[in-house]
Amino acid sequence: MLTNDKLAEWDRESFFHPSTHLAQFARGEAAQRIVTGGEGVFIQDRDGTRLLDGFAGLYCVNVGYGRKEIAEAIADQARQLSYYHAYAGHGSEASITLAKMVMDRAPKGMARVYFGLGGSDANETNIKLVWYYNNILGRPEKKKIISRWRGYHGSGLMTGSLTGLELFHKKFDLPLAQVIHTEAPYYYRRPQLDMSEADFVAYCVEQLEALIAREGADTIAAFIGEPVLGTGGIVPPPDGYWPAIQKVLDRHDILLISDEVVTGFGRLGTMFGSDHYGMRPDLITSAKGLTSAYAPLSASIVGQRMWDVLMQGTDENGVIGHGWTYSAHPIGAAAGIANLKLIDELGLVKNAGETGNYFWQTMREALGDHPNVGEVRGEGMLCAVELVADKEKRQFFDAAEGKGAKVVAAMLKRGVIARAMPQGDILGFAPPLCLSRAEADQIVSVTKDSVAEVLG
Amino acid sequence: MLTNDKLAEWDRESFFHPSTHLAQFARGEAAQRIVTGGEGVFIQDRDGTRLLDGFAGLYCVNVGYGRKEIAEAIADQARQLSYYHAYAGHGSEASITLAKMVMDRAPKGMARVYFGLGGSDANETNIKLVWYYNNILGRPEKKKIISRWRGYHGSGLMTGSLTGLELFHKKFDLPLAQVIHTEAPYYYRRPQLDMSEADFVAYCVEQLEALIAREGADTIAAFIGEPVLGTGGIVPPPDGYWPAIQKVLDRHDILLISDEVVTGFGRLGTMFGSDHYGMRPDLITSAKGLTSAYAPLSASIVGQRMWDVLMQGTDENGVIGHGWTYSAHPIGAAAGIANLKLIDELGLVKNAGETGNYFWQTMREALGDHPNVGEVRGEGMLCAVELVADKEKRQFFDAAEGKGAKVVAAMLKRGVIARAMPQGDILGFAPPLCLSRAEADQIVSVTKDSVAEVLG
Repeated sequence: MLTNDKLAEWDRESFFHPSTHLAQFARGEAAQRIVTGGEGVFIQDRDGTRLLDGFAGLYCVNVGYGRKEIAEAIADQARQLSYYHAYAGHGSEASITLAKMVMDRAPKGMARVYFGLGGSDANETNIKLVWYYNNILGRPEKKKIISRWRGYHGSGLMTGSLTGLELFHKKFDLPLAQVIHTEAPYYYRRPQLDMSEADFVAYCVEQLEALIAREGADTIAAFIGEPVLGTGGIVPPPDGYWPAIQKVLDRHDILLISDEVVTGFGRLGTMFGSDHYGMRPDLITSAKGLTSAYAPLSASIVGQRMWDVLMQGTDENGVIGHGWTYSAHPIGAAAGIANLKLIDELGLVKNAGETGNYFWQTMREALGDHPNVGEVRGEGMLCAVELVADKEKRQFFDAAEGKGAKVVAAMLKRGVIARAMPQGDILGFAPPLCLSRAEADQIVSVTKDSVAEVLG
Repeated sequence: MLTNDKLAEWDRESFFHPSTHLAQFARGEAAQRIVTGGEGVFIQDRDGTRLLDGFAGLYCVNVGYGRKEIAEAIADQARQLSYYHAYAGHGSEASITLAKMVMDRAPKGMARVYFGLGGSDANETNIKLVWYYNNILGRPEKKKIISRWRGYHGSGLMTGSLTGLELFHKKFDLPLAQVIHTEAPYYYRRPQLDMSEADFVAYCVEQLEALIAREGADTIAAFIGEPVLGTGGIVPPPDGYWPAIQKVLDRHDILLISDEVVTGFGRLGTMFGSDHYGMRPDLITSAKGLTSAYAPLSASIVGQRMWDVLMQGTDENGVIGHGWTYSAHPIGAAAGIANLKLIDELGLVKNAGETGNYFWQTMREALGDHPNVGEVRGEGMLCAVELVADKEKRQFFDAAEGKGAKVVAAMLKRGVIARAMPQGDILGFAPPLCLSRAEADQIVSVTKDSVAEVLG
């Protein structure tokens, strides 16, 4: 850190950082980093340190840092019209144009897009819409939401309840009673080691069926899931998982919310994860990739069968009582337009598939045989390396040892940012979609050296 | 609307607008307006119509439209660093600088600021912090939140529950059970007409005490209120209300959340409404005025006694499991810095007090004697005109007649935007804080003519 740096002092004294050890940070014991710029997959901090960001911020700076096209689109919009609201049929040229662009890219069967600010508020909107839908259909009891353990869907009260991770529940009285959790489609952590992938999918279906039977299908409104589990460990589903789940949901008239905050707009090498896995969602949650984080914006994309009921709802009850002041904010919309154009022009969806698959396969070749690497997995521009104490017995490390965090710290010294996922010793990677093969090689090489440093 | 306008068509086909009659909008029956620019208190739409915005967007464009200083700050930030996250002690120069500026302006006794995106998510953060606080203090039963009927605190599941307005509850299964409502401090709608203001304050206190007694103080965590009721009708509290409420809360160890999304950063002629009314909040919610809506940003300002417990919480439990990807977004932070500087340089807090009071007092002189105007009220740059069928008997119009909406429509034809508040026939005004006396006169004159057109 710079000496005599007022900013560093103000930071410790004034700023309540998210997901931080507040006391250690205030006492100056926890790390502080003031980021000042970036270009491509690299960021730079106030001390002049340059780092390869293997997590794209928080899986969000998909086009990479320093894209002038988006900065200038934001600048132009700020000069022309920074803000007007979208209530009661108002809009801006940017927000309407982006609505059209999102619908052009959305999977089949989607009808409208509601713009919010981030993934958490988009899921909040979605749950409200699901409840409204069943009220309009005269099914007031059909309200519970099934989520999966290890799903990540936000950190609000409802959205943190949907999230199936202990860190987001503990001391916050979550999950709320309206949310129930089922098995995570996490084959590496299957209950019996001798299960095949097909056995495990059948097991996930059984678990879901049993939960529905126990609660009663007429009490269950929706099932929410990320195409690929994200913060829960970066876990692509076992083969056949989504078609099997979709069948169960169809049979019980349960809506499907596909949370594509991480996967939307290209990360898997396809525009949406729902297309990638053959899901037929009624609602799609999107945020990060929509603007590559250049400005806050989220999207709840509403399927036709829901939209028809929402229209019926306003015919019966008047104006829908839902809205954020900053819904469809013009600055976010301008960033979104420029971002989606750039994704097309640079062919980033294709690169996410090709270089992404190269990246995690190279990681698997480099680390797959290490005795403390239980699994290297990936899909498109997502990759995870799961560390274990004993590979044969699939015995995990004691969480208190913090092996994952230690490897990530060793990587940081070598100039690469990875993320120690919050539950398990899992190294997570979600680089910008513009990653090159040389940069992929650099991440792999640093990961290998760092694993060797910490685990031998 | 422009003919052959693709945008207008895309809008009807793709865009799910907040707080809109979805079916009428889709069918082309409900109004559509595409806003393209603005300057000072005026906006302009795609058809070339220029309107005096008497509601500052949604009480948020406090410095007025078209401020180059903020647009250029956003542009510079977008070019330098559009985004990096604020998790785990990370920050940007802009977000840290703004944290310091907010703390310098906050009421006494505040310790830290958490940045989110909008008022709803800031209140969501606040309720999470309140629950966490009581869990750390070993009071797991002390969790209910008292809000007021007609309070507005957002439109999420929890925040819409805090909101005490029917529009935001109906068909959404709200309020959630954790929220209970008490009397609105709405003297004009007092239960008995012969109550004095002092009687009515005593009545509000009795109602609150009775609610606390019924539920048990050991089950109640916090009381949330706007210094001046906003969307519930724009209602300044009766004299002595807040000190009397504060005493009750202190006696029962109930935290106070001051929701200053509307009043924060100057709207009442003081930097915060808490200072204006002598409230001693533990948490302050802020959004709109923080950036004048030029980019999304909210702030939860945390008081010292809460902060101490939050620090204890992380010492006992590690990292706090709360955060949004876009917390402390650099674009919002840059807008906030430029906005707060501009508020200082232009003396807008003072103008909100002086011209604001001139505005609502002039409105009172112009309309107070009209037989269908029950009350003209205001404080700083907030004003409401409440319409009644019978002034003597304080008899309200039938809601189905939509008298308020008709007057607002008549005003729009005359080039002035006011808001028909959602519950009651109330014309709401919350102009930009840069309003001049001449512009105030124009709003008053248009209001007078429009009331005469609709009500004679």
